[in-house]
Amino acid sequence: MSDESTEVVLSLDELFSLSRDVLMRHGASPAHADAISRVIVQGQRDECHSHGLYRLLGCVRSIRSGKVDPRAEPTLRDLAPGVLSVDANYGFSLLAFETGLPRLAEKARSQGLAAMAIKRCFHFSALWPEVEAIAALGLVGLAMNPSHSWVAPEGGKRPVFGTNPIAFAWPRPDGDPFVFDFATSAIARGDIELHAREGKPIPEHWAFDRDGAPTTDARAALDGAMRTFGGHKGSALAAMVELLAGALIGDLTSMESQAFDAGAGASPCHGELVIAIDPRRFLGDDAADGHARAERLFDAVTGQGARLPSQRRFEARARSERDGVRIPGALYRDVLAL
Amino acid sequence: MSDESTEVVLSLDELFSLSRDVLMRHGASPAHADAISRVIVQGQRDECHSHGLYRLLGCVRSIRSGKVDPRAEPTLRDLAPGVLSVDANYGFSLLAFETGLPRLAEKARSQGLAAMAIKRCFHFSALWPEVEAIAALGLVGLAMNPSHSWVAPEGGKRPVFGTNPIAFAWPRPDGDPFVFDFATSAIARGDIELHAREGKPIPEHWAFDRDGAPTTDARAALDGAMRTFGGHKGSALAAMVELLAGALIGDLTSMESQAFDAGAGASPCHGELVIAIDPRRFLGDDAADGHARAERLFDAVTGQGARLPSQRRFEARARSERDGVRIPGALYRDVLAL
Repeated sequence: MSDESTEVVLSLDELFSLSRDVLMRHGASPAHADAISRVIVQGQRDECHSHGLYRLLGCVRSIRSGKVDPRAEPTLRDLAPGVLSVDANYGFSLLAFETGLPRLAEKARSQGLAAMAIKRCFHFSALWPEVEAIAALGLVGLAMNPSHSWVAPEGGKRPVFGTNPIAFAWPRPDGDPFVFDFATSAIARGDIELHAREGKPIPEHWAFDRDGAPTTDARAALDGAMRTFGGHKGSALAAMVELLAGALIGDLTSMESQAFDAGAGASPCHGELVIAIDPRRFLGDDAADGHARAERLFDAVTGQGARLPSQRRFEARARSERDGVRIPGALYRDVLAL
Repeated sequence: MSDESTEVVLSLDELFSLSRDVLMRHGASPAHADAISRVIVQGQRDECHSHGLYRLLGCVRSIRSGKVDPRAEPTLRDLAPGVLSVDANYGFSLLAFETGLPRLAEKARSQGLAAMAIKRCFHFSALWPEVEAIAALGLVGLAMNPSHSWVAPEGGKRPVFGTNPIAFAWPRPDGDPFVFDFATSAIARGDIELHAREGKPIPEHWAFDRDGAPTTDARAALDGAMRTFGGHKGSALAAMVELLAGALIGDLTSMESQAFDAGAGASPCHGELVIAIDPRRFLGDDAADGHARAERLFDAVTGQGARLPSQRRFEARARSERDGVRIPGALYRDVLAL
């Protein structure tokens, strides 16, 4: 983080306008610029620095690479009563998600659960804004996607999997949902990039260098293979994400997405699987009991001083909504120079 | 493990008959005795020792506790086009699963994906036999359940979660499916029980004693709190299992299941969520391409010397089908004495 004196404080509205202007200037359609900027603001607001304004750099780099169509219009297709696909047509994922969400919710409510396969999208954002949007509709949300093949399977040292995040949200009748969103890699790729940018060493269990030796050098890690979290269990989950959000939906695995990029350095292009579940179709008249049961579970966690997964993020959100967000001066200048 | 000379070698058929006879003698209906014995044989055959014949001891203890109805007939109910519930009526889970599976598969094929909520079942088995049964029908399977509150959330030291396994299977056109099944606890409860039974110490990161201190004493761990795997990520997944296979389906969380047992020492009574997905409804005419993509992923894992999650189990399976299974003498005598 830069020295205090160089920080810039922006309101959420100012941040949104900054992001939107940059995107429009680089050829994004208003619909894409809005969808992307909403999510960039959410990331910065919640103090997820690697998913906030920082991502705008990669987003513009992706547009400049010529790989992404920043004006692509997503197209919806019904595949089955419980399955919807949204073809992003090589645009960014966020507008595709927003476009499909109402239909996904409708299917979840009528079928009990439903899946949305987002296809051919460029992806740079966290998944929690998406599962939170599902929870805001009173539904349970689950989302996952591959990325680029940066992560070695447990027992190996060469990259196969992406960082393959899994996100989940449970709607709570009062207040913020229960939400988690984590990479199945030991750490998010963005965190290693930030370490490299700032010249900081990384912990030894995050990655191998290109020769398969554990490394604390962030740049060597970016050239080598990241590791999964939780040993063989995290590795199994990473494989599941490749299968469900790649092979199942007929879109690229992380290896294929890497090959598709062909060194252009754009955001990964691949698919995404989103599942929505309607608790009312499972619980009927007992929906309130189900929610009360969940609340007792949360109380047993927080009652012993442990945190719920997104608690820190919701605290940051309240702060940012009140005080605005603090942007490191160097990042702010980089964004203005875009 | 007992000394070689005391081992007993049984064919899979002999093991099945042994298990079935013991269960029938303790009041199980033929349908329950068959369903349970099939799964016990599968566990022993695949050399999952904590889920093989050893489990028959707990199974009979559960029947003797008077909590389980060993003759209960499961009842099916349609909750939505994509959702089915199977009330086990306080019998063991396995017959409920078998009873609901054909309807679950039918729903997955017509809707694209479907969920089965198994309710009020006593549970002692691994989940991989279930997701493998789903994969054998050409469907993707996902299953999870709570257990008893034995596991502390990350950041806490008092038990809230169960060992909360998650199992997944991807059907492969040729040969064994891609399958994983792991506890979201650092280790399976059965493994700590086996360590206690054999007087062996456990690694320090598995559990806290009842005062919240890390312990290597298996009995102290059983009285204290196990830990989740993978830090906050495993803890988040454990919470998800409580929510999806407890609160969502209107059945007990692990804390409630523990309270329901009231010290009787029966297998945990709770629910289970099973999801089946039909790749053909996502891929249509491109199903072969989707499977080819999955195979390339598996090749990239095994091609660098890493194992697929169930590889060891499938190797044991081939051995056991050829040579029979080896049962430790002490366990064999305990089972005969039931």
